[in-house]
Amino acid sequence: VAGPADHCLIMRPDDANIAGNVHGGTILKMIEEAGAIISTRHCNSQSGEPCVAALARVERTDFLSPMCIGDVANVSAEITYTSKHSVEVQVNVLSENILTGAKRMTNRATLWYVPLSLKNVDKVLEVPPIQYAWKELEEEGRKRYEEQKLERLVTKERNGDIIFPVINPEPYTVGCSQSSLIHLVGPSDCTLHGFVHGGVTMKLMDEVAGIVAARHCKTNVVTASVDAINFHEKIKKGCVITISGRMTFTSNKSMEIEVFVDADPFVDEPKERYRAVSAFFTYVSLSKEGKPLPVPQLVVESEDEKRRFEDGKGRYLQTKAKRQVQMQPLTQQ
Amino acid sequence: VAGPADHCLIMRPDDANIAGNVHGGTILKMIEEAGAIISTRHCNSQSGEPCVAALARVERTDFLSPMCIGDVANVSAEITYTSKHSVEVQVNVLSENILTGAKRMTNRATLWYVPLSLKNVDKVLEVPPIQYAWKELEEEGRKRYEEQKLERLVTKERNGDIIFPVINPEPYTVGCSQSSLIHLVGPSDCTLHGFVHGGVTMKLMDEVAGIVAARHCKTNVVTASVDAINFHEKIKKGCVITISGRMTFTSNKSMEIEVFVDADPFVDEPKERYRAVSAFFTYVSLSKEGKPLPVPQLVVESEDEKRRFEDGKGRYLQTKAKRQVQMQPLTQQ
Amino acid sequence: VAGPADHCLIMRPDDANIAGNVHGGTILKMIEEAGAIISTRHCNSQSGEPCVAALARVERTDFLSPMCIGDVANVSAEITYTSKHSVEVQVNVLSENILTGAKRMTNRATLWYVPLSLKNVDKVLEVPPIQYAWKELEEEGRKRYEEQKLERLVTKERNGDIIFPVINPEPYTVGCSQSSLIHLVGPSDCTLHGFVHGGVTMKLMDEVAGIVAARHCKTNVVTASVDAINFHEKIKKGCVITISGRMTFTSNKSMEIEVFVDADPFVDEPKERYRAVSAFFTYVSLSKEGKPLPVPQLVVESEDEKRRFEDGKGRYLQTKAKRQVQMQPLTQQ
Repeated sequence: VAGPADHCLIMRPDDANIAGNVHGGTILKMIEEAGAIISTRHCNSQSGEPCVAALARVERTDFLSPMCIGDVANVSAEITYTSKHSVEVQVNVLSENILTGAKRMTNRATLWYVPLSLKNVDKVLEVPPIQYAWKELEEEGRKRYEEQKLERLVTKERNGDIIFPVINPEPYTVGCSQSSLIHLVGPSDCTLHGFVHGGVTMKLMDEVAGIVAARHCKTNVVTASVDAINFHEKIKKGCVITISGRMTFTSNKSMEIEVFVDADPFVDEPKERYRAVSAFFTYVSLSKEGKPLPVPQLVVESEDEKRRFEDGKGRYLQTKAKRQVQMQPLTQQ
Repeated sequence: VAGPADHCLIMRPDDANIAGNVHGGTILKMIEEAGAIISTRHCNSQSGEPCVAALARVERTDFLSPMCIGDVANVSAEITYTSKHSVEVQVNVLSENILTGAKRMTNRATLWYVPLSLKNVDKVLEVPPIQYAWKELEEEGRKRYEEQKLERLVTKERNGDIIFPVINPEPYTVGCSQSSLIHLVGPSDCTLHGFVHGGVTMKLMDEVAGIVAARHCKTNVVTASVDAINFHEKIKKGCVITISGRMTFTSNKSMEIEVFVDADPFVDEPKERYRAVSAFFTYVSLSKEGKPLPVPQLVVESEDEKRRFEDGKGRYLQTKAKRQVQMQPLTQQ
Repeated sequence: VAGPADHCLIMRPDDANIAGNVHGGTILKMIEEAGAIISTRHCNSQSGEPCVAALARVERTDFLSPMCIGDVANVSAEITYTSKHSVEVQVNVLSENILTGAKRMTNRATLWYVPLSLKNVDKVLEVPPIQYAWKELEEEGRKRYEEQKLERLVTKERNGDIIFPVINPEPYTVGCSQSSLIHLVGPSDCTLHGFVHGGVTMKLMDEVAGIVAARHCKTNVVTASVDAINFHEKIKKGCVITISGRMTFTSNKSMEIEVFVDADPFVDEPKERYRAVSAFFTYVSLSKEGKPLPVPQLVVESEDEKRRFEDGKGRYLQTKAKRQVQMQPLTQQ
């Protein structure tokens, strides 16, 4: 019923690491996109409630040979089994060197999808059955189906684990909203020199600050200002950067978040981790109508937190005073 | 000498948060791109060594009015001062509603750039002087230059702080390589339903696993396989997801990394943080010639770490056995 | 000899404007990627010097029906003619609603590629000949080849024009809607050669044309067609490109926008700014129900503007006449 979902894509520098190998994650993303298209198409092939196929499980996937920048990825997908409520899709990925014509199998993946109603996301719909070329194919598919169903039940239980203990889960404390993000510096982040654009760093800093602010007040938050930022050290392509943010101060209607950028030149460089940039971001909380909302006061506990709160208050009052001076001529006119 | 660097850009869904407000970070990135272009162009306007202008400092920047999806950002940049080795650029950003024609000032930013030689990244070159319309403009620029120079010296010292205590900095321990990443789920990550594509999640999981592996063995690493992944819970647009990875097991030539995805439905949802996905990734370390390298053994300390190492060994041996069985028919033919 | 270059891709929010219509530029970019893959693959299919197929020309392309967020784009490419040094590729794009299964032809495009040696970028290599199913196909291809060759020679001269500065902010004047965008060419924009993909350039050209059109009529606008585009000069990684657009002509229900691409090889190259590409885009204005709306007439003031308006009217009438001729057999059936 449903046609194939094949595609070819050129692999670009941003899809790969610094040695030119395409990230496994890029390939997994292509595989899943092909699977989602073919299974959604199939599940809507008979008249009935419109639905989207949601990924339920990916079977163990091996990466058989590397894919490199400039290669063309050939992705082909096929539906190999359907149960009442799920679809099995097999996706093959070949890497093709279009200069030599050489093709190599990179992956063979099996994915399971479940059709969810577009009107009611919690409703699982029925899957139209496929035709099998041989009876054995259906029988083998049913075995794979039963196996994965069992495994899904088993692993569902194992998930209580936590990697990083949240230091302080009390609401409105510094520990409760602090956040960090790691980012692998890719080619598109960099100048001709191979150093990260300042703008890329600032965008990531703002992202972390925004998450800290939203975790604190659980509303729509927007950037109100950024303090002066000094770029002490260049960050090189291939680094992993860690951007961490913590709230330092709250006034009635604003939050100050301190953000640090640390760089790890982790491959083939003798250098240690270093602090590359730091800055203070001020955020405000907005209602649905776009009006500023009151901000819950930050709960400070340690001596360091108290000192940083006072420092933040100092910056806040100073900025406020400066603004009033600048505004006077305008408001008096 | 150098002309203006004006441009217009349409703001897209991925540039904004779930309420439609463009991220401050997106605006900062545009500002810096305009500044980098005009200052690099200026520094190369006289014959001499080719160079790239590197961002040294951004002055305090206020966000005067919000920008929304569908608005056109008008960015204009101008060089306002040059010292012997640095360039001051002023960038204005207007948000334009192209349906009504209304324009509003969003930002006025001041950035400082330093020209670095393309041949020798550590060499700062000289900046061609600009012409001033009035003598006072040069004088005021010099004052701003002196002020920021002083501030840069002062803040350089303040940077010893660390946000998250690294639990165990000993090489080859679990704590030494564990990593996590937060990601704000944007529209382009999602299906028609407003749920994250499975492929997007897998790409981020692989990214974290790759950083853990690289931190452990400090070489070029590539994905070798991914164990079966079950998608227990859907992840909704607007969530913040935390992807955390830790090494569980090493064999002679491979590393097993466990990756968790936790979702925080942080705005306007009563739901708690929940575990959405987890999986095991296997990575190998490659030499510059693409050959597998030996992997340093993981140092396990706590009882939990030892148990997880044994579990990982079990999975490793099981996979190895399975593969030998599958290979037999082929090698015997 | 060369296999197909088909692919399916889900259209995402960032591919579309605020009304949900996929940008013409996104579609042009997919078309060019498919064309580049199939022609590069073909030109390397016989042993010989490795090469990359560079885009030389795109024939006039009509957008027959809109594509929306959530649709799957089905792109298929086929080599239809080869001369000694160039390859003609035809690319078809269908938009598929995977919920209903409905498919509609969106575009049928013709592109010309030239194989450049990977070792020496200025060397054009020979193209392996293809087999034709009928002799007439070869003859018809030769005619198309001669026609486009002639047109390429003619248009190469027309390119002395400059858009800036904005003189007149009166509504519906040329100055009121003209717009420009600057872009720093990064690694992911480029081919293996380090030259910008033609599709990347076309996407940016369409973006500027769309802003010009929206500024003029302040409604939802979509690309209706693109005139033949000649790629006179390659654009190298590290360039800054300026893409400028101005309205040249309006009919009752369409707008013609002229777009220029100028490249500044601003670092380490003695070359001056040069005109790389130029083209005419036609846009239509749509109501919320997707019906074409009347377009406010363009106010032309200077002699140049009047001349360009008349030229645009000539192109408009010519296209209209051509289309009526092509349609006749169909409507008479």
